[in-house]
Amino acid sequence: MIIQKRARDYGFALGKLPTGARNSITDVTGVTVGHCTIDDARFKTGVTAILPCAENPFFHKLPAGVCILNGFGKTAGLMQIQELGTIETPIILTSTLNVGLAHDALVGYMIERCAADGFDDLRSINPVVAECCDGTLSDIRARPVKAEHVRAAIAAASSELPDGCVGGGRGTICHGLKGGIGTASRLLEYDGQTYTIGLLTQTNHGRLVDLRIDGNPIGQELAKTIDPSAPDKGSVIAILATDLPLNGRQLSRVAARVSVGLSRLGSNIAHGSGDIFIAFSTANPYDPRETAAVRDTRAFQEELLDGPFRAAAECAEEAVLNSMLTATETTGHTGYTAKSLRDLL
Amino acid sequence: MIIQKRARDYGFALGKLPTGARNSITDVTGVTVGHCTIDDARFKTGVTAILPCAENPFFHKLPAGVCILNGFGKTAGLMQIQELGTIETPIILTSTLNVGLAHDALVGYMIERCAADGFDDLRSINPVVAECCDGTLSDIRARPVKAEHVRAAIAAASSELPDGCVGGGRGTICHGLKGGIGTASRLLEYDGQTYTIGLLTQTNHGRLVDLRIDGNPIGQELAKTIDPSAPDKGSVIAILATDLPLNGRQLSRVAARVSVGLSRLGSNIAHGSGDIFIAFSTANPYDPRETAAVRDTRAFQEELLDGPFRAAAECAEEAVLNSMLTATETTGHTGYTAKSLRDLL
Amino acid sequence: MIIQKRARDYGFALGKLPTGARNSITDVTGVTVGHCTIDDARFKTGVTAILPCAENPFFHKLPAGVCILNGFGKTAGLMQIQELGTIETPIILTSTLNVGLAHDALVGYMIERCAADGFDDLRSINPVVAECCDGTLSDIRARPVKAEHVRAAIAAASSELPDGCVGGGRGTICHGLKGGIGTASRLLEYDGQTYTIGLLTQTNHGRLVDLRIDGNPIGQELAKTIDPSAPDKGSVIAILATDLPLNGRQLSRVAARVSVGLSRLGSNIAHGSGDIFIAFSTANPYDPRETAAVRDTRAFQEELLDGPFRAAAECAEEAVLNSMLTATETTGHTGYTAKSLRDLL
Amino acid sequence: MIIQKRARDYGFALGKLPTGARNSITDVTGVTVGHCTIDDARFKTGVTAILPCAENPFFHKLPAGVCILNGFGKTAGLMQIQELGTIETPIILTSTLNVGLAHDALVGYMIERCAADGFDDLRSINPVVAECCDGTLSDIRARPVKAEHVRAAIAAASSELPDGCVGGGRGTICHGLKGGIGTASRLLEYDGQTYTIGLLTQTNHGRLVDLRIDGNPIGQELAKTIDPSAPDKGSVIAILATDLPLNGRQLSRVAARVSVGLSRLGSNIAHGSGDIFIAFSTANPYDPRETAAVRDTRAFQEELLDGPFRAAAECAEEAVLNSMLTATETTGHTGYTAKSLRDLL
Repeated sequence: MIIQKRARDYGFALGKLPTGARNSITDVTGVTVGHCTIDDARFKTGVTAILPCAENPFFHKLPAGVCILNGFGKTAGLMQIQELGTIETPIILTSTLNVGLAHDALVGYMIERCAADGFDDLRSINPVVAECCDGTLSDIRARPVKAEHVRAAIAAASSELPDGCVGGGRGTICHGLKGGIGTASRLLEYDGQTYTIGLLTQTNHGRLVDLRIDGNPIGQELAKTIDPSAPDKGSVIAILATDLPLNGRQLSRVAARVSVGLSRLGSNIAHGSGDIFIAFSTANPYDPRETAAVRDTRAFQEELLDGPFRAAAECAEEAVLNSMLTATETTGHTGYTAKSLRDLL
Repeated sequence: MIIQKRARDYGFALGKLPTGARNSITDVTGVTVGHCTIDDARFKTGVTAILPCAENPFFHKLPAGVCILNGFGKTAGLMQIQELGTIETPIILTSTLNVGLAHDALVGYMIERCAADGFDDLRSINPVVAECCDGTLSDIRARPVKAEHVRAAIAAASSELPDGCVGGGRGTICHGLKGGIGTASRLLEYDGQTYTIGLLTQTNHGRLVDLRIDGNPIGQELAKTIDPSAPDKGSVIAILATDLPLNGRQLSRVAARVSVGLSRLGSNIAHGSGDIFIAFSTANPYDPRETAAVRDTRAFQEELLDGPFRAAAECAEEAVLNSMLTATETTGHTGYTAKSLRDLL
Repeated sequence: MIIQKRARDYGFALGKLPTGARNSITDVTGVTVGHCTIDDARFKTGVTAILPCAENPFFHKLPAGVCILNGFGKTAGLMQIQELGTIETPIILTSTLNVGLAHDALVGYMIERCAADGFDDLRSINPVVAECCDGTLSDIRARPVKAEHVRAAIAAASSELPDGCVGGGRGTICHGLKGGIGTASRLLEYDGQTYTIGLLTQTNHGRLVDLRIDGNPIGQELAKTIDPSAPDKGSVIAILATDLPLNGRQLSRVAARVSVGLSRLGSNIAHGSGDIFIAFSTANPYDPRETAAVRDTRAFQEELLDGPFRAAAECAEEAVLNSMLTATETTGHTGYTAKSLRDLL
Repeated sequence: MIIQKRARDYGFALGKLPTGARNSITDVTGVTVGHCTIDDARFKTGVTAILPCAENPFFHKLPAGVCILNGFGKTAGLMQIQELGTIETPIILTSTLNVGLAHDALVGYMIERCAADGFDDLRSINPVVAECCDGTLSDIRARPVKAEHVRAAIAAASSELPDGCVGGGRGTICHGLKGGIGTASRLLEYDGQTYTIGLLTQTNHGRLVDLRIDGNPIGQELAKTIDPSAPDKGSVIAILATDLPLNGRQLSRVAARVSVGLSRLGSNIAHGSGDIFIAFSTANPYDPRETAAVRDTRAFQEELLDGPFRAAAECAEEAVLNSMLTATETTGHTGYTAKSLRDLL
């Protein structure tokens, strides 16, 4: 694993809550992440896969919720999460025009995985595929992401996850600079037990002039020397994981607080930005094959949600910043170069 | 209690599921209903109170969900149900322009009830007040419903509940004939245990010409002799209760199936009709004073929801019909007379 | 074109409003429909394409709205319709597990179509792909629908559209019998001008025992001789078109009334059924290239919406019935046979 | 009018867009605001009325949209705005437990106003009443706001509006200090024409330690000397007005950007905070008495919405700050004192 300097290595300690061991979404036990990066002269794109659990998620459905802060986007699978309150596949992050092929690849993967688990009649599955438009740095219209890349990202999933110009973040641009994949985590303690909230983001949003780090309007300064005309047509995806026993409704509430972190870094929730946040819990898995009508579950006290809310906001702010600080300067197929924040500090 | 002939006494056995003992929302253990009727030359209106449990609902919050089929209405309290997934007061049904006074009365009632339970600092409470417009038969603009009527309806709550021209249904018009309050229930069995779904409706919707009973287009026949010009500006409220351990999301899904019963009787979900359905469960109550972060709950298997869905549809169809068959011909303050279906069969 | 007997030819005249010339969604000027059917021993599936206008819809965006009556489904593209209130591609109906490939094919089609119109930099497009699960009659897991089928369906689009076992409806099952594609239309008159509402549906929902035709519980009768155990895991998609100048919000309201027609025929909005309704208007197209900040539009009087609401309900009821009456008995890859309603009347 | 120092007088120039002449919601032509303040030893509360237009809003309905960022609140009237996309009354801001009485007062006011306009049969009206909980500084349970206060606030409406401890903001607490009513505005130019966005907020949210002004974490500093235990149970209401011809859907999108300004000042969207934003446009009024089915309207180009979005964010941030800087130190009925930010800078 490459040694990467992240926000805290630069002295930016955003928020007040302690971080997990890796300061990563993979601090939530069972959650793993894999990347497959496509990087050549024509393409700067790829796939990031978030596996919510080690088990087959079709038989180990996890509670999930959604916040659609701005729905100008192509993310697939949110409707069923909203209706049923669960996810049943890995979550794939890729390029806007590759949602269809990634969707199909995820169907294929789930058919095979269920067959391997003895169920060879899967007829309905809800792939979750989120996207950002990486068309400024990559020849997006050629749709280079194929099933093999989706499978490679899933196969690569581990708890050791580098941020930066990888996977679905290879070609993204954030606040006029190079964006990518970023992650962060926070710990919360209740009744003597420690719980984790982790977040991973694919960052492709914002204008340079609006960038603020811990309140400092650094974007205004940078915009004096860097061409601030970088397109602001992008999106931002955030995937939040926790081991707190939250249900779908509560997870939607937590997901809504991702917006707080984005706003503090300078997002204005642009018209053209699909700002989509998905949250899931690893607690209370549910098996559709269970025949008992009623099962035992655990529930988190609603009155204590300010803790998870704050953690979500802090994770979002730090994860976006991590994505920018670990991304490297990148020149795309048309010659456009996205500079890296880490070269500018 | 008046002996009333209801749909089944006329031979209309809508649906396939067995009914509860009273064929009423009060078949759900703990649920009681009270009416306070205002009935004089000028006013045909009143209040119906549904008490979801014997306990103080502020400290015994119950899971709840909502379906807003058509939001042209003034029902108060739905937003918080959608956010928090619980109810914390009795549910009041009254006249459109009396929502404010009933809301205030419910606040007063809850302040006193909480004080009686030792909590004398209630600062925030979410009254749920639904409404239909009874302005054709009652001088609605005078807003005659006062705190005393709301308190009287709550005080009258019992498990023995007459349908008909009572409480919030005293002045309503349904499918061009006299509407009112109707109720019905269904039983479901899972793993050897019997569960109940009950529904109460305040009916003020629909056109005569569209009325169908068990598929028979009786409204077209009746419209030949009865003035079919009765205003179709009304609404329909349905309150569904169950002892199944459903959460807020699941209850919203169940509430949506109320529409099925209404459509079968002839509703077209008119523009001017606030079609609002609220569902709650008496299982898994939640006390905001609990200090433990995590508590044990029970969850109903999602794959089995077709049972509750069917029960909701059947209850809605029969409850609306009950409201019409138990309502009596009524002449309002302007001389307009709403005929009763039971006189026309 | 095959001569098909439809509901009216059997004497079922559902509703009160007059029909358009073809009693079809294509009665709305500019709307065309094409099918590509895959029909062999292994596959009974295909693609139905609804083209909302003759123009390139990316530059001729049309107002659109959505009703998600039950979100257990995989339809793609609804989120952006809800956010922006417009559609910008043809609408594709296909098989559940083929949403991804159809999505990708629609991206490819739109890239080419925009290039042909002089815009060779399309980076973001919102394909609308709806689905039903035809896995009982077709080997769904093999995902046979490829780009060529999507393109063939689009290329075949015309105003002469047969109902029945075609395109996306080739393998569907409705109320335990053979379903398919059905369509119907209604005319409305305002201020001396005639407007049209047309609807097309892909029917894969409902149980036999619940089927009612014009109120007659025919399903109960049929269930005595036909195996009523046919799976009720399907969905129903409805696409509604109109030339009334309705905006996205109003179109969502109209779409919600599709449920009325479905309920009358016997749907209970099953748990496993994605009941998704999309409505668009051919009036007030909008070109994203326009540089003027403000443009002139026309708006439909909100108080008159009961007309379109009734038309939506009537179209839905008749279109579903048409889909069943024009579908033919079909035996699938596993030997299961879906009987046709037209053979049973 | 009291001379008040506002944010800009302290050198805080938040955002980049120019302000309107008054830097107030009343910069939007036709919008007026009135306060009625109840201020004695027991009560620190009141009413703020926003009149969207000089005309009777029941006959001059204005396009409106809503963002419910956190629905733990009692605001009445949002459901109908979401369904119909219009407002038809003044908007009242008051104390949580006074929503019912204010609702009733607004009904009474509208009945009389319509009667004065020749319509003496108003039977249905949608009062919009938003609220914050001022129970820390005021004896909220006594519900002192009566019809006379609502009428007085409406009667006082003018374009000259002081911020601060007035009306519905008399008893609120924001970021642990005294909150109140604040306002701000921004100008946008399109095609040579100037448009205005104005916002008014009732501020009762946030924790002291999180307060940031233009990025500076002043709250952390203040929390060293001020008791930071002030309750964080409040809410924040924002009313946004514009003369841009936006429809209900677009106004909902604009309203969502209010969250950006709140987040930048330090809000975490607390669990107990009803964060409710309502936006309306003074363009394209609609009269329900119009008999023509179709009318001419104007529409704003969707692709240009980033301007209004930025204006909404800037207005929100500055309006909240104005509310704090113009509020004065206040001691409530229990002896609790809320300090004023202006005494602490």
